[in-house]
Amino acid sequence: MVKELSRETEEAQLGESVEAYERQKPWERYIDAEMGLRNYWYPALFSHELKEGEIQTATICGERLLFKRIDGVVYCVEDRCVHRGVAFSAQPECYTKNTITCWLHGFTYDWRDGNLVQVISEPGGAIIGKASIKSYHVREMNRAIFVYIGDGEPVSPDEDLPPEFMKAVRGERRIAFHPLVRVLIPCNWRPAVENGFDPGHVYGHRGSDIVQRGYFPVPLGFYAATKDQIKVEEREGRTKGIILQHTQFTLVWEAEIEGQRLQAKAATEAAPPPQNYSADIVGGEYGGGAWYMPCTMEGIGFPQPSMIHYEWYVPVDADHHMYTILQAAYVDTDEDEERFHAECEEKWGPLVWSTPGSGVEGFNNFDAFGRAEIHHAYRREGWWRRERMYKPDYALTQWRMLVSKHARGIQPREGNWTPRPPMEAYEVKFVDTPGQVR
Amino acid sequence: MVKELSRETEEAQLGESVEAYERQKPWERYIDAEMGLRNYWYPALFSHELKEGEIQTATICGERLLFKRIDGVVYCVEDRCVHRGVAFSAQPECYTKNTITCWLHGFTYDWRDGNLVQVISEPGGAIIGKASIKSYHVREMNRAIFVYIGDGEPVSPDEDLPPEFMKAVRGERRIAFHPLVRVLIPCNWRPAVENGFDPGHVYGHRGSDIVQRGYFPVPLGFYAATKDQIKVEEREGRTKGIILQHTQFTLVWEAEIEGQRLQAKAATEAAPPPQNYSADIVGGEYGGGAWYMPCTMEGIGFPQPSMIHYEWYVPVDADHHMYTILQAAYVDTDEDEERFHAECEEKWGPLVWSTPGSGVEGFNNFDAFGRAEIHHAYRREGWWRRERMYKPDYALTQWRMLVSKHARGIQPREGNWTPRPPMEAYEVKFVDTPGQVR
Amino acid sequence: MVKELSRETEEAQLGESVEAYERQKPWERYIDAEMGLRNYWYPALFSHELKEGEIQTATICGERLLFKRIDGVVYCVEDRCVHRGVAFSAQPECYTKNTITCWLHGFTYDWRDGNLVQVISEPGGAIIGKASIKSYHVREMNRAIFVYIGDGEPVSPDEDLPPEFMKAVRGERRIAFHPLVRVLIPCNWRPAVENGFDPGHVYGHRGSDIVQRGYFPVPLGFYAATKDQIKVEEREGRTKGIILQHTQFTLVWEAEIEGQRLQAKAATEAAPPPQNYSADIVGGEYGGGAWYMPCTMEGIGFPQPSMIHYEWYVPVDADHHMYTILQAAYVDTDEDEERFHAECEEKWGPLVWSTPGSGVEGFNNFDAFGRAEIHHAYRREGWWRRERMYKPDYALTQWRMLVSKHARGIQPREGNWTPRPPMEAYEVKFVDTPGQVR
Repeated sequence: MVKELSRETEEAQLGESVEAYERQKPWERYIDAEMGLRNYWYPALFSHELKEGEIQTATICGERLLFKRIDGVVYCVEDRCVHRGVAFSAQPECYTKNTITCWLHGFTYDWRDGNLVQVISEPGGAIIGKASIKSYHVREMNRAIFVYIGDGEPVSPDEDLPPEFMKAVRGERRIAFHPLVRVLIPCNWRPAVENGFDPGHVYGHRGSDIVQRGYFPVPLGFYAATKDQIKVEEREGRTKGIILQHTQFTLVWEAEIEGQRLQAKAATEAAPPPQNYSADIVGGEYGGGAWYMPCTMEGIGFPQPSMIHYEWYVPVDADHHMYTILQAAYVDTDEDEERFHAECEEKWGPLVWSTPGSGVEGFNNFDAFGRAEIHHAYRREGWWRRERMYKPDYALTQWRMLVSKHARGIQPREGNWTPRPPMEAYEVKFVDTPGQVR
Repeated sequence: MVKELSRETEEAQLGESVEAYERQKPWERYIDAEMGLRNYWYPALFSHELKEGEIQTATICGERLLFKRIDGVVYCVEDRCVHRGVAFSAQPECYTKNTITCWLHGFTYDWRDGNLVQVISEPGGAIIGKASIKSYHVREMNRAIFVYIGDGEPVSPDEDLPPEFMKAVRGERRIAFHPLVRVLIPCNWRPAVENGFDPGHVYGHRGSDIVQRGYFPVPLGFYAATKDQIKVEEREGRTKGIILQHTQFTLVWEAEIEGQRLQAKAATEAAPPPQNYSADIVGGEYGGGAWYMPCTMEGIGFPQPSMIHYEWYVPVDADHHMYTILQAAYVDTDEDEERFHAECEEKWGPLVWSTPGSGVEGFNNFDAFGRAEIHHAYRREGWWRRERMYKPDYALTQWRMLVSKHARGIQPREGNWTPRPPMEAYEVKFVDTPGQVR
Repeated sequence: MVKELSRETEEAQLGESVEAYERQKPWERYIDAEMGLRNYWYPALFSHELKEGEIQTATICGERLLFKRIDGVVYCVEDRCVHRGVAFSAQPECYTKNTITCWLHGFTYDWRDGNLVQVISEPGGAIIGKASIKSYHVREMNRAIFVYIGDGEPVSPDEDLPPEFMKAVRGERRIAFHPLVRVLIPCNWRPAVENGFDPGHVYGHRGSDIVQRGYFPVPLGFYAATKDQIKVEEREGRTKGIILQHTQFTLVWEAEIEGQRLQAKAATEAAPPPQNYSADIVGGEYGGGAWYMPCTMEGIGFPQPSMIHYEWYVPVDADHHMYTILQAAYVDTDEDEERFHAECEEKWGPLVWSTPGSGVEGFNNFDAFGRAEIHHAYRREGWWRRERMYKPDYALTQWRMLVSKHARGIQPREGNWTPRPPMEAYEVKFVDTPGQVR
């Protein structure tokens, strides 16, 4: 019954597969995961955002978190007093190094385990030792602070973080990390993950300055031509993910509409466009990229060969994710590393995420724009059921099925956590120039 | 069993009829029609708002629309890409005259039928020819662009537009049209329609500059004294409506409260008030006005004899309508028409709808104010069930029953369409001067 | 079976009682009372806010009220025209002393009974005499205007107002009243009442200027050591309440955290702290305080001996209460009274409630801050079920049970009343200084 298919037949069937998934929706669990996946490690802060003795807040999967660095070690507790639910962060009080005191009734907890150790308004009261706030597991790795959102003992980070990232943690390979941006985006985490790796959306990036200035050639489109170019990583003990074999993807450099020819920036007569994504664009040795659970992208070779672009789309609430970008590079010497950091500050940083009003179209600002649009449709207009996928979306269907199959837990929608309004998110600007062709 | 009633008996019974309707609520279908009526023609834009090659958006009955004028002809498609629901209008791209391309993945549609004709990121892909976006029927008439919100082949505009309006379209009579205003009002479309023709609300207009300056005498109230003054037009093939025989209405020029006498502006000793609405106010030949389905008013003789005042209260969403005012006049020559347009620009326009801060109380600004108040009560405080009508509201009861009986369809409440917040609507200013008598 | 308990055993059991209540939640009726209690007297305005002939609005338990003073007497009607629900207050019109006219159709009502007496747009119409708006019972006492929210004949104010307050009304004792503040706070009325008397929250007040300047010594905590220090007043015909026997409360002047000693401002080596709340702080004769139903606090001896601090937490809607503070003092002569008023204006007023930006931390501004925090947790994060009480909260449990047992009525949640957005409430400022210890 096993048949060898010609490449063309396979390619046609791949399109049919997408349509079949459309009808069946075998990712209902993913559709339910509005608030994020439970029992996973998430990046909460960059290391430099939390200096010795400082306090910072974060919200992940709807849970309100409070961080403090004590003697170099980062601790995290729930940002809610067990007594009547007020936020410590509204007016933080730390009388001693290891304690946090609620400003309203003086309930005092130990940062290290969340236990109630004193109540200033009733010293030595009976409740001491009987009550506690939730304490979170924390790991600091590669200049970022990770927290475990879930129950019980955490899994090993080896099962939640991208492979190259963990190589650096384990010291197997020297990789430099540069925190680029942490910004709150008005979009659920799922359209954000999907956008990160969506092969078809490269079309939208043609106006980004990183492309216009010729630093990174993007085609009008690229996609898996056969199923085996989309690799599913679901081995026991590994970080689960979808790996795109970019090197074999079909690249689109031009298209025609009503007889008019469109070309990608890099496809000019003078300089014919690259044909092999890996060899010609991201560097022969690496090339490719992957989505990993819970919400990570590892983009090897972006925006330059020998670099890795990390993005986390951390679930905040149903309507927001924290866009967390860490740039990495393989380095051999301290000088390499210094050069890399300087280059990130001066060049790659602003090209990847530009300050509003800077006149630069940041590569990822466009992504935020696209995601916010998709979010509106999916969250408010029923597009989880209305969407109509095409062949390049095959990768997305595999991601959704992987999550539905392997997610350790789904954060409940009706949690006990509600964002305190207003949350100030990145303001997505819609370019409103009717009839203009760029 | 048929009895001849004296006018007084009839008048008393008319009041009783209103009370009977109050109890029975025979207009449940109308109460359900929050999002508007389906399978009708609605005005979307004024002609001058869409120049050759330009793109404009509109939202009607919750449906997001995108318009373009190509070689003089107006086309309309759904403002949502079939792929993942993003709005074309967020960043419109038209590579060729007849196509619209989605800025995110390059899905390209033909304006003329909504068919997907190309995908830039996967040229020639299998989805081409299989997918399309909704395409709407469009008619441009009397300097306005109408769109059909509904399914299948549209009905003839002869069945959805006011009779005098269609006479001009068919060339049976020369009528000049002047677009006055299109403004988003924070009020559902139904209180707006009802306000347009509500005979009792003329009391509220006594402060309008058009009245204060003596251009148009309004009584303190006027109403049908007998049922036959409210004519129901429900003949097959005609635009359904309620026609008020204003000429026979009872006019109220003064009233007394606790012995204090109130008089309308026009009712002074020196100049006794007009007694016949038709002959003395709006001109003998025309006189009267009507509500037409789905949401139109045809006010003959306003603000001057020989003129017609058209208003559409176009449903946008549950909380907004687009107040669309077109002034018309019967003209014989080009000079007549020019004079009419100049008069609209200089005089009637600002008196009908005044710019905030201009110091003029526009006639219809007051209406927006009254409607927003009623909307709040009906939408948020349950007044569809609490309202307590009086005799002048008899006309309203007939309107509600007409709609309930004849509506071709009710736009579903739980649609797929949601407004993108924030929508910037006209800000209704509440005059907050406690204890002041104007 | 009756046992004499040692004080220590009793004290331990009191803590256990709190835990038992936690599990049982015997105050479900109180949890339902989001919109307030029905069939009670509430203060709506201060007397000086409504001068002869003036009109003012208020919202209590979700009901929209309109007040007018006519010949010195205050009348109150529903701020909604019976016809179509518009608010009279949007543009109030009073043609005669005793009437209010709706600005939209001229429906005219008598202030004294709410009856429809005229309709300007249909003078003498059949509806006159058949329709009316709700008319409310009003009592003006001690410089405040009270209104009865409920049905039928009102109960005597003797059953809804604090005892000392009523003594002044009945002329049994000379007490001067000074209106301090009426401000809309973004917090449901219940956390507000609970905050008013919450013994444990004094900890939070240590930064208030009234404390820092030494006018009123507050301990770090104080609480009932035995149950008999919490007296339940539930006698027939009396205002129901919980009376705290402050004089016997345990006072906390210092506490220790990780070996670090904290002291209240008043507890210095030079001047040992007061030991008896009544004798040493609020004056031997009075001393104490109470919560009364529906939503009142009577704080005897605050901020000075011989004074009484009255607070009402008047329910407005689910998310707001009107914080109404009336300062009182026992006086003997006119000079006493003048001095008291001057002192309130110059000193106590600003210390109790400070203007934002004044640089003063008003005692009750802190309370508004604390309440808004608790409100967020209870209203949006489920803390009615998650809260974890401690011994000083025993008083709160008694209050909740008293209300659940005796409330004459619970205002329905799904009423016909909705606030007109936006309501401009006091903006609670969160002090955001991570890691700082004050």
